[in-house]
Amino acid sequence: MKVLFVGTGLIGGSFSLAMQKHGLLSEAGGFSRKESNLDRSVELGLISKKFTNLEDGIKWADWVILSIPVDVIDQMLPGILDMIREEQVIVDFGSTKGKICETVKSHEARARFIAAHPIAGTEYSGPEAAFASLFEEKLMIICEDGQSNPAALMQFEKVCKTIGMKLEYMDAEAHDRHLAYISHLSHITSYSLSNAVLDKEKDGQVILELAGSGFASTVRLAKSSPEMWAPIFMENKKMVLEALDAFLSNTAEFKRLLEADDLDGMFQFLEKGRAIKRVIK
Amino acid sequence: MKVLFVGTGLIGGSFSLAMQKHGLLSEAGGFSRKESNLDRSVELGLISKKFTNLEDGIKWADWVILSIPVDVIDQMLPGILDMIREEQVIVDFGSTKGKICETVKSHEARARFIAAHPIAGTEYSGPEAAFASLFEEKLMIICEDGQSNPAALMQFEKVCKTIGMKLEYMDAEAHDRHLAYISHLSHITSYSLSNAVLDKEKDGQVILELAGSGFASTVRLAKSSPEMWAPIFMENKKMVLEALDAFLSNTAEFKRLLEADDLDGMFQFLEKGRAIKRVIK
Repeated sequence: MKVLFVGTGLIGGSFSLAMQKHGLLSEAGGFSRKESNLDRSVELGLISKKFTNLEDGIKWADWVILSIPVDVIDQMLPGILDMIREEQVIVDFGSTKGKICETVKSHEARARFIAAHPIAGTEYSGPEAAFASLFEEKLMIICEDGQSNPAALMQFEKVCKTIGMKLEYMDAEAHDRHLAYISHLSHITSYSLSNAVLDKEKDGQVILELAGSGFASTVRLAKSSPEMWAPIFMENKKMVLEALDAFLSNTAEFKRLLEADDLDGMFQFLEKGRAIKRVIK
Repeated sequence: MKVLFVGTGLIGGSFSLAMQKHGLLSEAGGFSRKESNLDRSVELGLISKKFTNLEDGIKWADWVILSIPVDVIDQMLPGILDMIREEQVIVDFGSTKGKICETVKSHEARARFIAAHPIAGTEYSGPEAAFASLFEEKLMIICEDGQSNPAALMQFEKVCKTIGMKLEYMDAEAHDRHLAYISHLSHITSYSLSNAVLDKEKDGQVILELAGSGFASTVRLAKSSPEMWAPIFMENKKMVLEALDAFLSNTAEFKRLLEADDLDGMFQFLEKGRAIKRVIK
């Protein structure tokens, strides 16, 4: 199978490495408008064939995998679906699914498209961040699976299972709401925490010396790529605002307890939050 | 040197193990009102001698190290200073220093007391969580060092260096402000995030399946002990409120950018927060 990776950063690059490792790729191609990105991806073994013209890449490929910022997926996907042949499969790996599914729901080639989201990543980005084992034991969520061609879907599921992934199916709205709480919100709190601390502690040396591993852990996601994350927040605006308001309401409650010197109430608040340890080991 | 550990949890227990490892202890004693705590600490090798009467323990000890919740330190310290002999040294390892230093500043035995804060820990607590290498390469902050007896201080500094710690000196107010931003705030955001997600996702299984490593990392500190943390927030109320307001103001700015669909502004906000990667590797 020849796969064109549109985006060969952490996610696309790692998926290519995983497919190569399991002998699932006859050839990996990459598309980028920047030739230097492609050269680096070839050096790192993520792809072997370079395309700076998207149409050429799509003609060449059996499959097309989109691992680019969600707003760019939105812009590109209808045009790609216009171009594809009957036997081709297009998969997107965007972190929000509602808007993308809505954008293409009436496209005549909708069935050739699979809306997927691999729950895997690190705070690093770009081709250098890719590694073959990123997806092992991780979850691939497939949204609106009923809209995709069954044979194409089965082929994609087989690839996911072969590289060690588990599968789950969700409608796009449920996906976007769950992810707003469990993923997007923790990115927002990390970025806000980082901004608050950097405003105050102009001298990075003080942060470095005083930061126990706790701060490093809490602020880790703030190292994530703004190119990826600004569009995710924007695309999932409604759900993100809902999750953010839930968080702000909890934080306001903490503040109220502190201002009222309510030690018992504070204790209850923390005890409730600590219950997360029953879920996350 | 015989040391009485008042509190043999993660911090006190690990300090005992580290001192034992470096041959700095002739005997480790533990004080607790709960005999079962002491029995467990003996089993784990954290201490070898048990005291359920504080006065007996203090009579026996050369040094006393307090690793208990900060509000309990506040309550106990004046009484301990009333009891001690001229050659004894009392050290506290509380995470806030202003109130404790204030409480004992006019005590006639103030010079026998060292106000210290080891910047080390994990999200786990209790005797089982203790391990000998916790303090290696970590920072011991000593506050108001001018108020402590120079010989006692030198002895304490030597112990810290021997177990692999670096030393830093700070006035109590600067300590409490820095820690409010760099440590206490990240605990608050973790607890609030945990509460918001647990409110929404009653089914822990969904959290478990969807939570990438990012969520686990951001929420990790919410597993910390409420017995330790509720009093820390209360004791450091003024500074914690200042840090919390700085955080809330950043989060409000994020929300404003999202509501206004300001993608460029959002990008700048995230890019600013991402600068933390220059400090925290």
